[in-house]
This record gives sequence, structure tokens and C-alpha cells, in this order.
Amino acid sequence: MADLKGKEIALQLNERLKAEVLELTKTHRAPKLAIILVGNHPASLSYIKGKLGAAKAVGIIAELHQLDENTSQENVLKIIQALNDDHDVDGMILQLPLPDHLNERTLIDAISQNKDADGFHTINQGKLYQSLEGIVPATPLGIIKLIDEYSIDVKGMNAVIIGRSNIVGFPIARLLMDRGATITICHS
Amino acid sequence: MADLKGKEIALQLNERLKAEVLELTKTHRAPKLAIILVGNHPASLSYIKGKLGAAKAVGIIAELHQLDENTSQENVLKIIQALNDDHDVDGMILQLPLPDHLNERTLIDAISQNKDADGFHTINQGKLYQSLEGIVPATPLGIIKLIDEYSIDVKGMNAVIIGRSNIVGFPIARLLMDRGATITICHS
Repeated sequence: MADLKGKEIALQLNERLKAEVLELTKTHRAPKLAIILVGNHPASLSYIKGKLGAAKAVGIIAELHQLDENTSQENVLKIIQALNDDHDVDGMILQLPLPDHLNERTLIDAISQNKDADGFHTINQGKLYQSLEGIVPATPLGIIKLIDEYSIDVKGMNAVIIGRSNIVGFPIARLLMDRGATITICHS
Repeated sequence: MADLKGKEIALQLNERLKAEVLELTKTHRAPKLAIILVGNHPASLSYIKGKLGAAKAVGIIAELHQLDENTSQENVLKIIQALNDDHDVDGMILQLPLPDHLNERTLIDAISQNKDADGFHTINQGKLYQSLEGIVPATPLGIIKLIDEYSIDVKGMNAVIIGRSNIVGFPIARLLMDRGATITICHS
């Protein structure tokens, strides 16, 4: 099997995406992503900086809604609802982890399933594991895109997945299984 | 490992369930299951006969709504909605397969997630694969109950699952993974 050069493929995909956004914006407004951050966790800020930069580089508008660390569940819900109702917002990310006093699951499921950029909404998770069209979490989707760009047919291959998180391990297992691989999920 | 005697365990579980229903009905109405069948597929009729008998044996009221094979999507939706709204109905099964002119996915997702006895609703599927409490499909749940009755700890074991359906193979893989097994899902 060939070495998979993720960085190269990412650059190519970015170029393609940039061209698509340029084409789109000849007739429509630019796509817009809203990111909600509660508090100022340094790792979260660093991830978000990466996302904001990546969006900007391809012509997607990304706006950060940074809330106080002690903000209430009700207040976060209100902001999610406003972004759901805002026709200029196409996607939304609720940056995780959240402070302990907030209910992560309730907040994620309050995001419109069509704006759930992370694909963590229970309905998008249910679609993923039934092989129905929906929004797929970014990391496993990236792995599939990488495999697809190299035209690798995983049918009949043995795929060993180390780790079983709902963010990477378990969804990539499902996506590889959907493509005909025999999958093994190991963990500690 | 001990031989797993499914039939014996099933009889014991039935006795326990019967006692629970009896206790419940001292103060409440009996639980009620509604089964919707479109057409008269012989295998479906046979399955349903089994379900009706099993329900009756433990004191659960089960009623069959048998619809004409040519019934419209709209009509099935109307019946599902009526059963959703009926406070005397606790659970509902839409017997599969459906005739080709009906949209299975739309109809299953029209069932109230709390009355989705089969656990096939996209939200219950999403919950299952995020290890959240919800309604779990019957066959994988039965396997787990069997394992639990024998107090078998699958942690660290290798579990090989042959078949990857959303009815048995994939959900049992998840449930075993949740209990700490290393899982391998094979298929043709």
C-alpha cells in the first residue's frame, strides 16, 4: 500500500473547496460557521484558532461566540436557538469540553441537526450507524477522504482500530465496515 | 465457559416479567403493545403470532392493526400518530418488511421514540451508539441478558460477530464493546 500523504491531500482539498466557495459566492452569500466557546480553555482556544484560520483560507465566514465560563445552561441554549434561527448561519460548533455545570448532551441535541457541523447530534449519530445520509464527524470523515483520494478499496481488508471513542474510533469502524472491511476494535 | 441455555433463561425472565406485570396491575392498567402489519406476509404473521402469544402469557395487552397491502404512506402515518397520542398504548411495533411503496425509514421515525419497542428509531439508534439510555433492539438485548444471567464478564475477551446488520450484528458489537470486549465484525 502507498504511503498516505495527509498534508498533501489536505492542501488539494482546500484548493478545491476554495474554488467551490468562490464559484458559490458569485451568486450566493458566503457560507458561515458559528463557533461557541464557553470559558477560555487554552487547548480549546488553540483548536478554534485553527478552525477560524482554515475557514478563512477557503472563504468561509467563521465567527466566534465566546461566553463566560460561568454562563448558564439556559443562556447557551438561547444562543444555540438564535443561531438555529439565523438563516445566514450554515453550521455550528459547540466547542468541547464544556464546564461541568453545563449538560453537554442536551446542548448538542439542541443544535439543528442540519447545522450540526461536528455530527455529534443524536440524530446524526443515529444516521451514521444506519448508513443514512447525515453529517459525519470530521476526523473519521477525513480518514475516509484520505483513503478515497488514494482510490483504496478496503473491501475484504482487515481494519484494526485502536480506541473506541465516538469521535474517531467507533465512527471510522462503521465507515470502514460500510465499505466492506472486516473490522476489529481494540482498546486498553 | 458454561453452555448458555437460552430457553431456560427465557422461561425464568418470563416468570419474572409476569410477576412484575401482576404487581403493576394492582394499581395501574396493564401495559399495552400495538403491532402494525401491512399486508399478510406469512413470515410476518408467524412472527406476530409469537409476539401476541408472548405478550398475553405475561399479562401485556397486545393488539394487532392489520392494514391492507395497498394502504398509503399517509394512512400508516395517521395510524402511527394516533397510537403515539393514545395514552393507553405503551409500545408500538411496525412489522417489517413493508411493501415497496411505503417509506420504512420515515414511518419508523414517525413513531414516538418512547414507544419505539423495536429500538429502530434514529434517535434510539443514536443513543445506543453513544451508550446513552434508550430503547435497544430486542435480539442484541436478549443476547446481553443471557450473558448477564450467567454473570459472564466479557471484559478483555475477544468477541467475533458474524454479520453486520443493524438488527443484530452491529448493535451487539457495540453492547459487547461497551462491556469491555475487543470486537471483530466479519461478513461475507
